[in-house]
Amino acid sequence: MDLANLNWLSATDATRLIRDGVISSQQLVEACLARVREVDADVQAWAFLDPDHALAQARAADEWRMSGQPTGPLHGVPVGVKDIIDTADMPTENGSVLHAGRTPSRDATVVSMLRAAGAVILGKTVTTELATRTPGKTRNPHNPAHTPGGSSSGSAAAVAAGMVPLALGSQTTGSTIRPASYCGVYGFKPTHGLIPRHGMLELSRTLDHVGLFARSLEDLALLMEELAGYDERDPDSRPRARVPYRDVLAEEPPLPPVFAFVKGRVWDRVEADAKAAFAELAGVLGDRVEEVELTPADEVLAWHDAISGAEIAVSLRREWETGRERLSEALRSRIERGRNVLACDYLAARARIRQLNESLIELFEQRYDAILTPAAFGTAPEGLDSTGDPAPCALWTFTGMPALSVPLMQGANGLPLGVQLVAPCHWDARLLRTARWLVARVAGG
Amino acid sequence: MDLANLNWLSATDATRLIRDGVISSQQLVEACLARVREVDADVQAWAFLDPDHALAQARAADEWRMSGQPTGPLHGVPVGVKDIIDTADMPTENGSVLHAGRTPSRDATVVSMLRAAGAVILGKTVTTELATRTPGKTRNPHNPAHTPGGSSSGSAAAVAAGMVPLALGSQTTGSTIRPASYCGVYGFKPTHGLIPRHGMLELSRTLDHVGLFARSLEDLALLMEELAGYDERDPDSRPRARVPYRDVLAEEPPLPPVFAFVKGRVWDRVEADAKAAFAELAGVLGDRVEEVELTPADEVLAWHDAISGAEIAVSLRREWETGRERLSEALRSRIERGRNVLACDYLAARARIRQLNESLIELFEQRYDAILTPAAFGTAPEGLDSTGDPAPCALWTFTGMPALSVPLMQGANGLPLGVQLVAPCHWDARLLRTARWLVARVAGG
Repeated sequence: MDLANLNWLSATDATRLIRDGVISSQQLVEACLARVREVDADVQAWAFLDPDHALAQARAADEWRMSGQPTGPLHGVPVGVKDIIDTADMPTENGSVLHAGRTPSRDATVVSMLRAAGAVILGKTVTTELATRTPGKTRNPHNPAHTPGGSSSGSAAAVAAGMVPLALGSQTTGSTIRPASYCGVYGFKPTHGLIPRHGMLELSRTLDHVGLFARSLEDLALLMEELAGYDERDPDSRPRARVPYRDVLAEEPPLPPVFAFVKGRVWDRVEADAKAAFAELAGVLGDRVEEVELTPADEVLAWHDAISGAEIAVSLRREWETGRERLSEALRSRIERGRNVLACDYLAARARIRQLNESLIELFEQRYDAILTPAAFGTAPEGLDSTGDPAPCALWTFTGMPALSVPLMQGANGLPLGVQLVAPCHWDARLLRTARWLVARVAGG
Repeated sequence: MDLANLNWLSATDATRLIRDGVISSQQLVEACLARVREVDADVQAWAFLDPDHALAQARAADEWRMSGQPTGPLHGVPVGVKDIIDTADMPTENGSVLHAGRTPSRDATVVSMLRAAGAVILGKTVTTELATRTPGKTRNPHNPAHTPGGSSSGSAAAVAAGMVPLALGSQTTGSTIRPASYCGVYGFKPTHGLIPRHGMLELSRTLDHVGLFARSLEDLALLMEELAGYDERDPDSRPRARVPYRDVLAEEPPLPPVFAFVKGRVWDRVEADAKAAFAELAGVLGDRVEEVELTPADEVLAWHDAISGAEIAVSLRREWETGRERLSEALRSRIERGRNVLACDYLAARARIRQLNESLIELFEQRYDAILTPAAFGTAPEGLDSTGDPAPCALWTFTGMPALSVPLMQGANGLPLGVQLVAPCHWDARLLRTARWLVARVAGG
């Protein structure tokens, strides 16, 4: 076992090796911390990282195992947590000077779930300002002159740079799928409400999702088994039967999947090299992909804006009232617009969510296993003043459908480019299985 | 058996007598129709009533029983249905000329549930204009110069006048509790979402409830067993364990109940004779009642108005766009106000619902079985231009808590006056049991 490269292990492999006594959690966490020292001066993925505290958690995990206690499914595995998700033992500053020094008294539900599974919370990853559009300090690990995307900038970059195998983020428009695409990792936004959001900064109850980052589909399935669950404190969480994500992922699809290639209204803005990459991918897929037009989605950006604007204005009311001069100009004007949204426009937009889901489900039930569509307009843009445009993600966040960015392609500049796969609500496990088929097809293709 | 007075039987007695072959459903329905002929020229409770169709349903129920088939819990019992609840075999005109001649293709969920239990749908009862404030033709059966209350005017009046033992209504502010109080019958608004609303005119998803009318608590419990249930087409319906309402009602409370007498901000406007009646009731209850002040509820009328206004504006958008000149002036101005509600005010009001429930539950868990509070400002006002003021009901509709009007008192004019009992969400069965204790206590003096 090459101890120097343990940081590149998948979580699935790492937890098995820890359980079997081949490596210790301390060795794994030391390798990750070494990688942080090596690359993070350039990448700057972490809002908070206390190496001693991380190692103390790792040693406790090792002692627990050595004492003969049963180990959890993520035993000893380090996880990065976006700094809008509360941790009782580390600050949670939400990417805003208004929350500097904020230390929550409790873990968010997902952090409790990670700890219950045996995970080590390595540190808190950089977010944009209050998980909106104004960038944090993180840079793209593939080229530090380029944005990593956002708002889950640090989580995507940390996983991509091999500083941690898993990280949690969030998505209200495109905050998981876009940075995953830009950084060349898997990013997964499961069905709305499936992973409880209690203890995470609330921007928009209707649109907020927990997002997951990993370097393999197996690791996403492993995380899903721990994090998909009921929490009565999240009003959109419901009790549901447990899904064996890893078993479903490992199955062969009963028939080879068929993909609906949806270009959508955003296609005109997709960059030429990305269009070429999609054409090449479509060539590999042959008769397993068909181009499909979705007309009802034309106004989705306006509907998304009405809902997110109004809900953000309410969620950030205290920040607005007590410190608006310390918000970015962009966020201030977004809140101002949100404060003027009419309730009837908000409610009309809300009503579209169900309607769109009902019309889209037909597409899948009739013929398709997944929609295949751009995760972003192209590779990570140069410059750090913007985290890029989330528009290609808006419809799938709006509908609450599971969306996955698969790091399958490259741009002309050599930077990574994700393929976004989307499925109906609660087809999460099947979507991961469909993605596995796609990855194997491309690799074999 | 005095066949002439069968119309005054409770549903509980009637369905037992039908099951045992002592009376037929046809005899029962004939007695109800005879009572309609006798009094409805004065009361005008019915928007639609076809005696032949009602009798055909009754004869079918009798034939079913005679063929040896098992009978349902409401077998052969006539029920009145508010004319905002869809029936596939009768018009449903929603109290608006804009919907004149409207004949739905399907039964509302509650109507399907009634038919599945063996009930006869006697006819459709008068509603105010689109279940809002502009009166229909119905008069108070105790004195036709007085309003029956609204918006479930016909349902309350029909049950009070002995034209039918049971009727369905609705409540978005005070549309069940107030007419029940004015007409001297039991009116019950169960917990929000407990009875599915699919197929009922939607005014306000957040505030709309199905309401029930009967002349006994046993009959309400019987109805609850049939109508409380899950329907995925109502977004606020949830799968829940079945509750044996009749068994719970029949139990003795483990301890004599304690009531919290809540006068609230509306007390100043309660009429003198109603205040005197409450004082007398409190005297009978002695140490089983304590006066409690609820301060957080002061702004509830404004919050209720923001939510109902905005949601009604969306729900009645088509009526507004295609026929606003045929809406009443009062409804037009309500919609206009609702169209101007800001989404952030709407959302702030929505957030109060959970907060109020959380603060109120403490009151009950610490000490009280039910809140005891006015159902209305007094007896039914004279005149037919208004259905009276729903303000005393607004808080309990806003919170979604179960509320019951118990016909226990009288005003100085001899007209009935209800006592409103309220309990936390999902204490519905216990609330009925508490009411039974109260009625027995008052009868025992």
